[in-house]
Amino acid sequence: MAASLSAKASELFNEPNLVHLATLMADGSSQVSPVWVEYDNGSILINTALGRIKPKNLDRDKRVALSLVDRNNAYRAVIVRGSVVEMTETGADAHIDKLAKKYLGVDSYPGRSAIEKRVIVRIQPERVSEMGLD
Amino acid sequence: MAASLSAKASELFNEPNLVHLATLMADGSSQVSPVWVEYDNGSILINTALGRIKPKNLDRDKRVALSLVDRNNAYRAVIVRGSVVEMTETGADAHIDKLAKKYLGVDSYPGRSAIEKRVIVRIQPERVSEMGLD
Repeated sequence: MAASLSAKASELFNEPNLVHLATLMADGSSQVSPVWVEYDNGSILINTALGRIKPKNLDRDKRVALSLVDRNNAYRAVIVRGSVVEMTETGADAHIDKLAKKYLGVDSYPGRSAIEKRVIVRIQPERVSEMGLD
Repeated sequence: MAASLSAKASELFNEPNLVHLATLMADGSSQVSPVWVEYDNGSILINTALGRIKPKNLDRDKRVALSLVDRNNAYRAVIVRGSVVEMTETGADAHIDKLAKKYLGVDSYPGRSAIEKRVIVRIQPERVSEMGLD
């Protein structure tokens, strides 16, 4: 079931392009929101905070879908379906800083909250469609 | 259940921002892909072609979710959950040209296929979250 991204697709994930991530609500409908992302050795990592809709949904149903369009060329896109294989608080504070560096160019995530616990969500791609990457 | 977009959110839909639209697969998982969009008097319109994944999914389950980020400012975003209230071929060829004008600045949709039938999908927003639009 595992699928991998091409070199060009993984480049798009490592550039500061937003991903739009869908999770499943309790009633089976979907929810989509924009997230920062990192491609890590075959996995797609996002970073969220405990108590939000996404981790609640992922505790119930691990299936996700996501879509990325090159911020510099709308004809280049990657869409993925997959499953969450790990959710961990370990390293999640450092990871959100790393993403803030990537997307905002700052050393420390400016949206940090004293009461929120960050969590890294590791996604295994299962189906990958790439457009315009030839 | 119907919800409406604020004036500022509807502006974002009327500018050439991409929307990432989630539909539901037969197994209940989600699928997301980037689409052109228009805001029309309380409804969100997209344009697809019969036989593709999205209209097949929507024939089975009308529930959708979508996410839009301002192409000029990643802090401005709108996320929507809603349902498809109409799918029609009427006017769909003219509509894809209208969207090609909006997104590409051309009079005629360059991806037109002689064998594909275009369809307008009308979405009624039910929950709207706006970020950074104050």
